Amino acid sequence: METNVKNGVNKFKELVANQGELTEFLEKYPTVEVAEMIEDLDTGDMLHCLDLLPPERQGAIFSELQMTRQLSFFQQVSKKRFAPIFEHMYSDHRADLFQHFTQQEKTAILPFLSGEVRENVIHLSAYDPETAGGIMSTDFTAIREDLSCRQAIEQIRSSSTKNLIYYVYVVDENMRLLGFASLKDIIMADPSTMVREIYHREFAYSMVEEDREEVAKKVEKYDLVAIPVLNSENQLIGLVHHDDALEVIRAEHTEDMEKFMGIVPGDEILDYNQTSTFGHFRKRVVWLSLLAVLGVISGIIIHSFEETLATLIILAMYIPMVADTGGNAGSQAATVVIRALALGQLKLADWLRIIWKEARIAFLLAIVLGIIAYGKVLWLSWNTHIPPEYDLFFLAFGISLALSFQVITSTVVGACLPLVVKRFGGDPAVAASPAITTTVDITGLLIYFGIAMMLFF
Amino acid sequence: METNVKNGVNKFKELVANQGELTEFLEKYPTVEVAEMIEDLDTGDMLHCLDLLPPERQGAIFSELQMTRQLSFFQQVSKKRFAPIFEHMYSDHRADLFQHFTQQEKTAILPFLSGEVRENVIHLSAYDPETAGGIMSTDFTAIREDLSCRQAIEQIRSSSTKNLIYYVYVVDENMRLLGFASLKDIIMADPSTMVREIYHREFAYSMVEEDREEVAKKVEKYDLVAIPVLNSENQLIGLVHHDDALEVIRAEHTEDMEKFMGIVPGDEILDYNQTSTFGHFRKRVVWLSLLAVLGVISGIIIHSFEETLATLIILAMYIPMVADTGGNAGSQAATVVIRALALGQLKLADWLRIIWKEARIAFLLAIVLGIIAYGKVLWLSWNTHIPPEYDLFFLAFGISLALSFQVITSTVVGACLPLVVKRFGGDPAVAASPAITTTVDITGLLIYFGIAMMLFF
Repeated sequence: METNVKNGVNKFKELVANQGELTEFLEKYPTVEVAEMIEDLDTGDMLHCLDLLPPERQGAIFSELQMTRQLSFFQQVSKKRFAPIFEHMYSDHRADLFQHFTQQEKTAILPFLSGEVRENVIHLSAYDPETAGGIMSTDFTAIREDLSCRQAIEQIRSSSTKNLIYYVYVVDENMRLLGFASLKDIIMADPSTMVREIYHREFAYSMVEEDREEVAKKVEKYDLVAIPVLNSENQLIGLVHHDDALEVIRAEHTEDMEKFMGIVPGDEILDYNQTSTFGHFRKRVVWLSLLAVLGVISGIIIHSFEETLATLIILAMYIPMVADTGGNAGSQAATVVIRALALGQLKLADWLRIIWKEARIAFLLAIVLGIIAYGKVLWLSWNTHIPPEYDLFFLAFGISLALSFQVITSTVVGACLPLVVKRFGGDPAVAASPAITTTVDITGLLIYFGIAMMLFF
Repeated sequence: METNVKNGVNKFKELVANQGELTEFLEKYPTVEVAEMIEDLDTGDMLHCLDLLPPERQGAIFSELQMTRQLSFFQQVSKKRFAPIFEHMYSDHRADLFQHFTQQEKTAILPFLSGEVRENVIHLSAYDPETAGGIMSTDFTAIREDLSCRQAIEQIRSSSTKNLIYYVYVVDENMRLLGFASLKDIIMADPSTMVREIYHREFAYSMVEEDREEVAKKVEKYDLVAIPVLNSENQLIGLVHHDDALEVIRAEHTEDMEKFMGIVPGDEILDYNQTSTFGHFRKRVVWLSLLAVLGVISGIIIHSFEETLATLIILAMYIPMVADTGGNAGSQAATVVIRALALGQLKLADWLRIIWKEARIAFLLAIVLGIIAYGKVLWLSWNTHIPPEYDLFFLAFGISLALSFQVITSTVVGACLPLVVKRFGGDPAVAASPAITTTVDITGLLIYFGIAMMLFF
């Protein structure tokens, strides 16, 4: 298909000039691909292409364009010309776009819309984008339980839904959701069978104000193609489709990784290219500055051992090694715990078991890394100036012992930090790698100088 | 639904003793939830529950259990008793389970299976689990284009597919895929219309040996409920469903984060609890050891400036600060670039533009962090012993200047490393945070001592 798109784009350019062939061409390709092809055209050409197609398809293709392209298109054509395209967009994409309009733009487009669409847009854009209401579509097929399957099929055939139909929802006279039937159930049943006899009465659903991540998790858990969205009266008001759920999961993934690296995620996940240099700077500077300020604690510890370092300059030279190894081990442990929490494999209540397991893992790591450190110190510092009363083998032993302790401490701290953040209601992912590095720097220095003072002074 | 499960589990325990009520209860709940409820029962009780249900449902519920539970169940019941459950599992889950059997177990179960199932299992388990073939289901509905819609519906009704049907696939006499129609298309059309007149001839598809991540991306891009899988003859041999695609995306997410933190991902994403202490250790020790060995380079640089450090001990005390800040800035840049590459927002060819953008971002960061560092040095080292020929203000200037240069270098290096790895065919995520820390430690030390030598000696 990918190569199709490439060939398509070339072919396409030839055709833009040629009306008849172009129409045929645009009709043949899948919606997403046509959207990709026309994305980069200027607004005049795009309008020209859309005009060749029936309004439903115009709306579908326009829905698949990038938000920024939708906005620029909207700003370049007359409201009157834009209204029919807007009316035929998918309801969830339409509400999304509407929310990106300025107040003035909103007021300008509304008069050109039919009463039904106007109401729908205002209704949908009132929901918080982070909730089920914010990502739901209002395009669904509902039937009553006192129909026969034959009547149900008639009703489905006469409905005007734009989306594919997978499930038909069974509601009572007040639109309260009673259950659902798949299209297959209805077709497979004898046409005279009543819907009442075949529909499923147990079903997964979301409340309209539910967090969109929770909604996505339900779609995933129950392997659903769409999940019904209910209001507080248990009335069916929309559907969240599997592809919207997937988009949420992708966005959360990006948010997790960004949080984990100490990047402040925006309200909206913006494209790398669309974010300005200053926008990128703003997202990164917060944590970096905070960590630089927190680094003062490490500075104070190092300064209080100034004389120790002056006597044994070799000790100063191994601070970075101990700090780095601790940071790496701690980040690994945090990553594993954060993922296991996110996937529901671990719960807060397991904290004691987690710490115990991490401690054992850390013990094994400490042995291996301690031995490597011992060898490194002997090799690197073979010719280093050491005061005559000290012995290099004993110094190497002390430094690698400190490193081993540091590996154990930072692994356990790395595993605990996400748990602590979660305990206090935060997102474990903010127990970010840089945060762990800075935390274990402090424990590392205390261990390092503690052991040095005990063994060497 | 979640609270339903909890109530369910309690109610459920009461019922296990009570046959009739239990059957009714098990029939009512969704498959996934019944699987959750019986997961922790011992094998005898689980078998007892399954026996109350029709074989199709036994297979569906058993498919939803964790792999380890499936295996332990299999090992505890007779092969003869297990065969009908196994035969009614979803074909993709069944092939998965089969691949987890020992050679002996495989040989033991095969004679109890019907010829058709036996062939299907052997066929499916021959595919690499990382490909479309490894995650596809063979349960689909194919029709010929010379049927009328009425005949098509008849054929769908008589088919024995276990899954929900969303699309019906149109094939020629050699099972080569020609196109598809949604169930809605067929129902909406006049019953006498020929399938030939309504089916879609442009469609997305996967080849059987295609990487499963690519397949998942196509499902996502085209908002598909299922994507057809073709062999090299373009014959339709299976489907990858949206829920399997979602599972792949989740798994890749975990793999990304693990790689990013220098954890060696296993062939299979195992549960935190199911992985042994030694298993966790093995996944983490490789990178940690490698980095420790690479750290030798930093060690050599530090040692070659031993005399410098002995003269100006204050320089030794700020090495960790410069190294940490560089590591953090580099990790951030790498995270952003890795994500943008994964989401297709950036391409390799954009490398010059990326570097230029990152350099500008880094310049802004360098100013802010340089000022903070200058303040820190002045404050922390106010009473530090400095040789009389040196001035603290000038030393602070040099140290913070080095830190600023280091922020710029490590941001650019952090952005480039994933590009370089991708260029040479690797997964950008292995340009992992610890790898960046270790790399920029080296550049950081060179910058630090370079500036120190220029300004202070």
